[in-house]
Amino acid sequence: MTADAKYDVVAIGNAIVDVISRAEDDFLVGHGLHKGGMTLIDEAKSSDLYEAMSSTTVISGGSAANTMVGLASLGGKAAFIGKVRDDEPGHAFRHDIQASGVHFATPAATDGATTARCLVLVTPDGERTMSTYLGACVALGPEDVDEALIASARIFYFEGYLWDPPRAKEAFRRAAIAARNAKRKIALTLSDSFCVDRYRDEFLDLIRSGHVDILFANESELHALYQTADFDTAIKALCAEKTLAFVTRSASGCVIVDHGAVQTAPAAPIERLVDTTGAGDLFAAGVLFGLARQYPLQRCAAIGALAAAEVIQHYGARPEQILSELLAQTPV
Amino acid sequence: MTADAKYDVVAIGNAIVDVISRAEDDFLVGHGLHKGGMTLIDEAKSSDLYEAMSSTTVISGGSAANTMVGLASLGGKAAFIGKVRDDEPGHAFRHDIQASGVHFATPAATDGATTARCLVLVTPDGERTMSTYLGACVALGPEDVDEALIASARIFYFEGYLWDPPRAKEAFRRAAIAARNAKRKIALTLSDSFCVDRYRDEFLDLIRSGHVDILFANESELHALYQTADFDTAIKALCAEKTLAFVTRSASGCVIVDHGAVQTAPAAPIERLVDTTGAGDLFAAGVLFGLARQYPLQRCAAIGALAAAEVIQHYGARPEQILSELLAQTPV
Repeated sequence: MTADAKYDVVAIGNAIVDVISRAEDDFLVGHGLHKGGMTLIDEAKSSDLYEAMSSTTVISGGSAANTMVGLASLGGKAAFIGKVRDDEPGHAFRHDIQASGVHFATPAATDGATTARCLVLVTPDGERTMSTYLGACVALGPEDVDEALIASARIFYFEGYLWDPPRAKEAFRRAAIAARNAKRKIALTLSDSFCVDRYRDEFLDLIRSGHVDILFANESELHALYQTADFDTAIKALCAEKTLAFVTRSASGCVIVDHGAVQTAPAAPIERLVDTTGAGDLFAAGVLFGLARQYPLQRCAAIGALAAAEVIQHYGARPEQILSELLAQTPV
Repeated sequence: MTADAKYDVVAIGNAIVDVISRAEDDFLVGHGLHKGGMTLIDEAKSSDLYEAMSSTTVISGGSAANTMVGLASLGGKAAFIGKVRDDEPGHAFRHDIQASGVHFATPAATDGATTARCLVLVTPDGERTMSTYLGACVALGPEDVDEALIASARIFYFEGYLWDPPRAKEAFRRAAIAARNAKRKIALTLSDSFCVDRYRDEFLDLIRSGHVDILFANESELHALYQTADFDTAIKALCAEKTLAFVTRSASGCVIVDHGAVQTAPAAPIERLVDTTGAGDLFAAGVLFGLARQYPLQRCAAIGALAAAEVIQHYGARPEQILSELLAQTPV
C-alpha cells in the first residue's frame, strides 16, 4: 500500500434506503421469507409487503454504504459509489451519507426505477430479515466509476450484492483494474449466503484469480461458498486461498485467516441485542479502518467488534454514536 | 361518560412526519432555535435546515397522533383526524398510524402543500428541539370532522398546536359541539410554551368557558399559561379552574389537580435518557387509557409515566415496545 492516498477506502455498493419494522416469526413464515437472509423482490411485492408491515422507521442503508459511514464515524476518510434515483428517498440517501462525512458524487438516475428500498423485519430475537427492491441500483454501470477516485484510496471495497444488478459487476471490473494499476488493495464482503449461492463460482473465481486481498464473510456465507456444513472444513478451505479473511461468528467473535494462518478474536460485550442489521457492515468498517492504518490484525478485529456492538444495540444499520468517541472511551 | 362508546379516544391534531437527527447545542444556537421548543418554519427554511442536519431517522409523529398510537399500543381503541397530502410521506404517515391499530380515515389533500415535516434535533442531553413545516396541515377544516366518529368516543382529545393552521380551530369547534351533544369528555394538551404564548387568551377562554374537562401541560406550558415563573403560583391558579389537570415535571413526576385538589405522582424509572420527543404525548396516552376505564387518578398517572419512560429511551415519539405487554410486565 502506498502512503499518498486521499481516502482510506472507496466502496461500490447498492444505494438503498431501509424501511424497518418489528415482526413476529409467524409474519416471516406467512410471507415466505427466509429468516436472516436477503431476498430480492419486485416493486409490486415490495408495496404489498410494506402494506402488511407494522409501523416503520426509515434510515439510509446499503451494506457497503453503511460500512463507509462507519469508517467515517471512526475518523477514517471514505468515499462511496452507488446509484439512487432523483426522488425523495434518493435525496435522503445522499443527504445522510454526505452528512456522515462520506464523499458521494455518483449522479442520480433521472429516469427509470425509483431509489432502492430494503424492507427490514426485525424479530423479537433481534435477527433481521431483508426484502430488497433494487430499483435504481440496476442503473449503476462502469460509466459511474471514477478511476481517479478509486486510485486515490488505499483500499477498494465492494459487496457481493453488486452481482445482483445487471451491469454493476462491469463497474466493479473497471474499478478493480484502476485499483490494481494504482497498487491498491481490494476487499470483498460476501454479503449474504443466498447471494453466495447465486454467484458461488464467480466469487470463487475472483478470490482464486487474485482479485481479492481481503475477504469478509460470516459463518453461513462461508458455508455457502464452500458448500459445507462443518466450520472447520470451511476454514480449512479458506486457508488454501491467498487472502486475508475475517469470518464473523456473531457473539462468538471472529476467525482471522491470514494466508493460511488462523487466529481468533472476541466479540465486544453488549447490554442488549436490538437489531442485528449492519453488524457485518460495521465490523468491516472497523477492520478496514485498522488495516488502512496498518494496525495489527487483532486490533483491527477489536475495532470491528466495537463498531458492530454499537450498531446492534439499536434499530438501523448506521451508527447512532460517534464511533471515534466510542473508540476513545474504549481503547482497543 | 356513557358506556356505549366504540372508541376510548378520538383525537384531532397535526399529521406530521418527524425527521430526527442528533445535534450539538452549538448547532441550535447557530440556527437560532429555541432549545426544547417548537418553532414554525416555512418550506424554504425547512429545506435549508434539513441540508445542515446530520444523518436522519424518519418516523411518523404529530403530538396527538403519537398519543393515539400510544393508546392503541396499550390496548385502547383510538381514532385520529388529521391532514396529510397524497405524497410519499403522507402515505407513510397513514401506513404507520393504521398499522398501529388507530382508525384514521381523513382524506389526503390532493393539491397544495406537501405533508407536514418536523425536523427534530436531539442534543446529547436527550432534549429535543423541533422546527415544523405545517404543509398540508393547513388544509384541515371542519369538513374533515366526522361528527358520528366524535360522538362514538368516550373522550375527544385535541392539541394546542391545532391553533397554528388557520382553519383547524373551526374543526375543533365542530368536534367539540358533537362531543358535548353526545355527553363526551373533552381533553386538551397545551402542546408547547411558545404555542401557549401565541394563543394564551384563547386557551384560557376555552378552559374557563367549560370546554376542557381534562387538561395536560408540562411545567413551562403552565408557566406560559399563567405568566408566572413560580410553580406554586401556577398550581394555585390551576386550582381555580373547573378541570382535571395533569402537569408533568420530567423526572420529578407529575402534579394532578382535580378541581382544586392537588396530589403528586412519581415518574417511572429509566435506564438511559436518549430522546425526550413524545414524552408528553405518551404520558397523555397512558392517562387517557386509564381515564377511559375509570381507573383511579394515581393509576392513570402511573400508566402515563410507564408509557413516557418507554418512549424517551429511544429515538422517535412512537413506542418501540408493545405497551400492553410492558404494562403486563410492570403492573401499576
